[in-house]
Parts: sequence; C-alpha cells; structure tokens
Amino acid sequence: MYITCLDVEGVLVPEIWIAFAEASGIPELKKTTRDEPDYDKLMNWRLGILKEHGLGLKEIQETIAKIDPLPGAREFLDELRTFSQVILISDTFTQFATPLMEKLGWPTLFCNSLEVAEDGEITGFKMRVEQSKLSTVKALQSIGFDTIASGDSYNDLGMIQASKAGFLFRSTEQIKADHPELPAYETYEELLAAIKDAMNM
Amino acid sequence: MYITCLDVEGVLVPEIWIAFAEASGIPELKKTTRDEPDYDKLMNWRLGILKEHGLGLKEIQETIAKIDPLPGAREFLDELRTFSQVILISDTFTQFATPLMEKLGWPTLFCNSLEVAEDGEITGFKMRVEQSKLSTVKALQSIGFDTIASGDSYNDLGMIQASKAGFLFRSTEQIKADHPELPAYETYEELLAAIKDAMNM
Repeated sequence: MYITCLDVEGVLVPEIWIAFAEASGIPELKKTTRDEPDYDKLMNWRLGILKEHGLGLKEIQETIAKIDPLPGAREFLDELRTFSQVILISDTFTQFATPLMEKLGWPTLFCNSLEVAEDGEITGFKMRVEQSKLSTVKALQSIGFDTIASGDSYNDLGMIQASKAGFLFRSTEQIKADHPELPAYETYEELLAAIKDAMNM
Repeated sequence: MYITCLDVEGVLVPEIWIAFAEASGIPELKKTTRDEPDYDKLMNWRLGILKEHGLGLKEIQETIAKIDPLPGAREFLDELRTFSQVILISDTFTQFATPLMEKLGWPTLFCNSLEVAEDGEITGFKMRVEQSKLSTVKALQSIGFDTIASGDSYNDLGMIQASKAGFLFRSTEQIKADHPELPAYETYEELLAAIKDAMNM
C-alpha cells in the first residue's frame, strides 16, 4: 500500500515565518534554516525577537489567518486524496498550521507544538521527534506502507531518498544541481502524474 | 502531541460485509470475526462465496456506494479534526472504504488492499501489517505522538489498552463486562468530550 508524504511550507503554503516577517515589519524574522542550519538555535532566536517586540501567538495567528495556500494547492491535495492516503510532514507548529489546514480541507498533519503562556507569550517549543520527516517515513514503512515523498528543501532530502519514489518540488537550483538523480517538478500537474506513475496507476 | 486513532466499522460507518450480505441476499456473508476469529480464514471463505455467486468488486462497490456513514459520524469527525490529528485504522480494504471516506470528508485511513483481476474478480487480499491497530499505534508513539484510541470490538482492544487514553464506543455487553476498566460511550458527544478531556482541553 502506498502513502504520500508531503512537505508543507514551499510546497502547499508559503513560508510562514517569511509571511510574518513581512506582515510585522521585522525583516530579521526572514532568516531561515538556509541561514542558520541549527533549528533549535534558530527557533530560540526567533522567540527572543518576538519577546523583544512584545509579540505573542495571537499576533502570529492573525497574520497566518490572512495567508492562503499556494494557488492550486487545495485542488492538488483534493485530487491526490481521492487515490492515495496523504500525510503532511512539517517542522512547523500546530498553532501556526491549523488555520492553513482548514483552508486545505483538514488533511492529516504531523508537526510540532509550541509552549504558550496564559498571556499568549510563546515560551518554548516541543519537537515531536528528531529528524521528523525521515523518522516518520521510516515509521510508516515499518507498518507496511510504501512511501512516496516530495518536498523542496534540505530537510526533505532524507524522506525523499528513503522512499519508494521521491520528488523535489519547487526546490532551489542548488539542491537540484546537487541531486540530479531526483526528479524535480515545478507544477502540481507534473507532481500528480509522477505520484500516479509511482503507484502504477 | 496527541493523535486520535479510530476504528471505522461500527464506529463511523455500518459493518460493510453485513450491509453487502443484506443487499446481495447472501446471509452467509453476515459471518464476522465474532463467529470466525481467524481473519485470513474468514476472508478466504468470503472470497469463495463471492466466486460461487459470480460476484466481484464492482457489485460490492455498488452496494457500498449506497451505504451512508452512521448518523452524526461526519459531524463528529469534522469537529474532532479541528483540534486533533486523526487516523482511521481499519481491517477493511481501500477498494471498499474509499466511497465512504469521500462521504466522511477524506479523513486519513490506514487499512488493507484487495487483489483484483482485470475482470473484477477479487482474487486475494494483502494485509498491511500484522495486528494492524496495535502496530500502527505503536509506530505513531515511536515518532513522538501520545495516542488516544477508540473502537468497538475485540481487535480494537490492543490499541485502546496501549494508548494514553482509550475508550470503547458502541461496544458489546460482553466486551464492556470483560473490561470494566475501559470507559465505554454510546454517543459522539460523550466520545468528543472524553477525547478533549484526555488532551487537557
């Protein structure tokens, strides 16, 4: 049995922190894992910036409420879910992703969670598991699934390479050049066709 | 992070084989795991009966297309999915369950698959993993989830007992009497409240 595992930010929705950096007028928050590969360090730095500006969960959620999925993402997911089970795997947090999942028709999302104080201050975060994408794909394989995976970024490579079929989607020129063995697509039509092909449909 | 794992037949939709037994006028097909605990033996016996009557996947799917989820199931799932990730875990087969999943808003379903010949004859079946409910719950726990589980039958006991919180739902008097330690509910309202309570909401 096949199951499709998809990255979220960059693949189905815009990068949440970049959207919040723009909405809040705090350009430092555009820093991503490309600038700071240590995710813990990056997140703690982000929480420091939020505290400094007196911003909490409410303000971030207000920005996220205005973000829409990428054009065509909902239709892509809707069609994919008619013929494949789908799990979205993301390094984001439930509290950020929920409004976007509503706009995507409530697909199943495996992500992380924020620790939030009563006054709304984000005091910390809890990662679900180490190397969440690769670990999740391996756990799904251990219960009889053949996984198909797609994502755009460095942290997606593990699950893409460990899967029965794996595809880059709207990735960077650098990642595509470093991984000529991975099919790389730019449109949802191409990605849907590749997933069907991998499932022998 | 919490994830809710739910049985399907008896909890969200009627028993598929019983519905098909009634629609096809073949009462033998009402035999369930309560009569024949060996699932492999039961399934092979069912496939023999289908072959004998010249019935294939198409005829079963036509019956299933007419089945509706249990009253209130869609609303229950819709509300549950706004505050918890949900995985449906069933011993049924993708080819049977898909029309019902459409009526339930495409929740994620982990089940098994049928082998079907070009003429529509069901020639065999492939179970995803042994003890699928317990194995799935354990795999989810291995990637950082606290599971909450609910089901109605013997094969649900493993996942219910292995979870952070577990509930019987519309179970038999016998199972409830044998397991007085497990909270047992009859309505979706009670089950929703119990899940929220387990999640400290």
